[in-house]
Amino acid sequence: MSTCSLDRREFLNATAGALIAAPFFASTPPPNVVLIYADDLGYGDLGCYGSRIPTPNLDRMAAGGMRFTQFYSANPVCSPSRAALLTGRYPTRVGVPRVLFPQDPGGLADSETTIAQLLKGRGYKTMCIGKWHLGRPARYMPTNRGFDEYFGIPYSNDMTPRPLMHDLDVIEEPATLETLTPRYTDQALRFIERSKGSPFFLYMPHTYPHIPLAASERFRGKSGAGDYGDAVEEIDWSVGQVLGALKSHGLDRNTLVIFSSDNGPWYQGSPGRLRGRKGSTYEGGVREPFIARFPGRIPSGRVSRAVASTMDILPTLAGLCGAPRPDKPLDGIDIWPVLSGRTATLEREALLYFDGWNVQCARLGRWKLHFARYNSDTYAPAPSGGRFNLPLPFPELYDIENDPDESYDVAPANPAVVTTIRRRVEQLLEGFPAEVQKAFKETVARQVLPTSTGALPKIKDK
Amino acid sequence: MSTCSLDRREFLNATAGALIAAPFFASTPPPNVVLIYADDLGYGDLGCYGSRIPTPNLDRMAAGGMRFTQFYSANPVCSPSRAALLTGRYPTRVGVPRVLFPQDPGGLADSETTIAQLLKGRGYKTMCIGKWHLGRPARYMPTNRGFDEYFGIPYSNDMTPRPLMHDLDVIEEPATLETLTPRYTDQALRFIERSKGSPFFLYMPHTYPHIPLAASERFRGKSGAGDYGDAVEEIDWSVGQVLGALKSHGLDRNTLVIFSSDNGPWYQGSPGRLRGRKGSTYEGGVREPFIARFPGRIPSGRVSRAVASTMDILPTLAGLCGAPRPDKPLDGIDIWPVLSGRTATLEREALLYFDGWNVQCARLGRWKLHFARYNSDTYAPAPSGGRFNLPLPFPELYDIENDPDESYDVAPANPAVVTTIRRRVEQLLEGFPAEVQKAFKETVARQVLPTSTGALPKIKDK
Repeated sequence: MSTCSLDRREFLNATAGALIAAPFFASTPPPNVVLIYADDLGYGDLGCYGSRIPTPNLDRMAAGGMRFTQFYSANPVCSPSRAALLTGRYPTRVGVPRVLFPQDPGGLADSETTIAQLLKGRGYKTMCIGKWHLGRPARYMPTNRGFDEYFGIPYSNDMTPRPLMHDLDVIEEPATLETLTPRYTDQALRFIERSKGSPFFLYMPHTYPHIPLAASERFRGKSGAGDYGDAVEEIDWSVGQVLGALKSHGLDRNTLVIFSSDNGPWYQGSPGRLRGRKGSTYEGGVREPFIARFPGRIPSGRVSRAVASTMDILPTLAGLCGAPRPDKPLDGIDIWPVLSGRTATLEREALLYFDGWNVQCARLGRWKLHFARYNSDTYAPAPSGGRFNLPLPFPELYDIENDPDESYDVAPANPAVVTTIRRRVEQLLEGFPAEVQKAFKETVARQVLPTSTGALPKIKDK
Repeated sequence: MSTCSLDRREFLNATAGALIAAPFFASTPPPNVVLIYADDLGYGDLGCYGSRIPTPNLDRMAAGGMRFTQFYSANPVCSPSRAALLTGRYPTRVGVPRVLFPQDPGGLADSETTIAQLLKGRGYKTMCIGKWHLGRPARYMPTNRGFDEYFGIPYSNDMTPRPLMHDLDVIEEPATLETLTPRYTDQALRFIERSKGSPFFLYMPHTYPHIPLAASERFRGKSGAGDYGDAVEEIDWSVGQVLGALKSHGLDRNTLVIFSSDNGPWYQGSPGRLRGRKGSTYEGGVREPFIARFPGRIPSGRVSRAVASTMDILPTLAGLCGAPRPDKPLDGIDIWPVLSGRTATLEREALLYFDGWNVQCARLGRWKLHFARYNSDTYAPAPSGGRFNLPLPFPELYDIENDPDESYDVAPANPAVVTTIRRRVEQLLEGFPAEVQKAFKETVARQVLPTSTGALPKIKDK
């Protein structure tokens, strides 16, 4: 199928999007989109999510928009999480099942369509500022993936070498860490200024609070929450600068601004009261802050408990901006009905959480079923792509609505739920790469369904 | 020094204890003591600590007594934690730096005095019911360590073989898991009944909620929080039975009842919003529920934020029951001033948290300084006794009062605090075994004191 032809469902979706957007587009250009993405920021690290780190700008942004309490990254580590964000599809489908390193020859598959490509096709000016991490070879870099311009460190700040790049040129190496957030911000303000005549898409994946942590002089030692807090406070300042620029250019009422992060906190940072951290598919590794603000279009001061995912951003933007969806099955859904305040919940398929090729767990409604867990003792080398995957001898079931900490496995009391979710995952994986299906079948084949109390085998991981 | 001679401090303590207790002892016998200890129970696993597991009896006990929010086990795993509880001294001092296995030839050093020996010397009847885990050879078993009688599995229920013992005799093997809590409870009620004429000490270290989890028919599937919740609910029932027996025998106003646990939750269970679990010296591995009830002597419905430790129980009981302290340096302190409601805070030395011989961190006032952390990738074989010790390249400092999650390292902003605590720990360790001092010196020698932002070396543990 070419990008010009639509199947029936896509046609209906596109039509519906156009109909909804029609009165809006009649008088205004398509909305601008600013997507700000932190790196390794925990669910509990913003003021509006209970942190003591001062984040007045993000708190104000939440007060003027909608904040989600069950928003998930598609993966608990950087590269796969970003691959899913930009394509609306699981990272195992788009060639990025694991973290990419500077010397890796690969990247996000050429056959995939990014949000930037989608919106560029709709006439948007596009820029990426910050951490790319979807492939270092030129063909995978932002300027070859739908972005007119790029500025930033192309992967994590703890990797070597550490170049600061403009498009495909290295302009500083190693990049001076404490200058990054201000320079990213400066680039963002300039891009907004020079793009104001046409619709634009600004993707701003910050370098922080990934380690090594740094903040500029103005924020160093100021947060009262260590280097991590200082870095977060500077990102909050940056968000304030971007929102201020939108306002001063008269763009804020025609711009959707989104803030989220790629995965849970690593050494420092807080997952709130959730279990697990970066790398883990427990909630603390994948549940993220998510704030969306669009004055007049998204009701202000709302908190949504809908289960949503970074993979929902592409389909939502496609609908909102009137761009055709990519001609591939999308794993995310259009969440505009929730964002616009028309509905409170979303009907959706099971959400899967991977470590490499391995499905570690699935969320369906209030339930989360674990087939495997993160375990640093278990190292399954490539080509499995699974770094820290410990298959569980029996599946564990958590009632996330009542037990967000994942403290109490209720599989033995709910065998029918276990069986249902397992079957749904099997069906869902049918369109996935062979490695994914094989890994899942092997895990399930070895698993004993939960039985009575006291009969549970011991897991050998300590 | 013999047990009959006292140094000046001990003399003053003993005198103070006698003076305080005098009016009480004038009309009543010394108080009975019931010490109930759960196994692998998390800080967040009781109703009165925010759990959804129904624990009405423990909640009532807290409402009728005092509940602590900063009470620490001396170690994040079973055997060392219990060694410290029964001796009032760090586990590295008493020969139990690590978990004991059934085939281990050792146990709690013969030269140590347990709470049971202390109170037996004061004329108490004594019984231990449940998990001992301080040495399997007969010389280390409860009946040779101050207890008149013993009933229970002598170590963890996941170890093989799994005998149920009465004194030194195996009466069932393997023990039937789902019968344990009711049988322990039955033994406790009988002991209370037959001891009521004299002062008694009942030490009741439960087998659960350590895995493999089990509960009797009456509680199985009832808690709504899985096998773990069922096991906790049955322990709560057991506590209710013990409190009821004390009341029906007219003993409740002359009995101090204490409830706590040995370390944080393992696979299941909730550390609340604290970081880390069993095995870790982050708060979630060592902070425990602690409830003390003594009608008329401990004010009811109080919550104490004082920093206290399982090692405080021996010195507190020595004072309260008028027993001479052991003739060794104690690491715990008498916390009766807080329990009795006379003071709110305690002046105390730094509290140390160990993995084997390794001091991983120290709490002093609001600060907790980490020299090392739990890491399952790091295996330091015997004789170090440290199983999972990862020395940190730079110490991390957390402000526990403001950051109980240990999310934000504030060492760079507080170098003087780091230096002070490090020096205090060095001094404290002077009376410790050579292995402990050596391990600490080696860790510190390799550490860089915190410097400016951005200069922190990366920790290689992922």
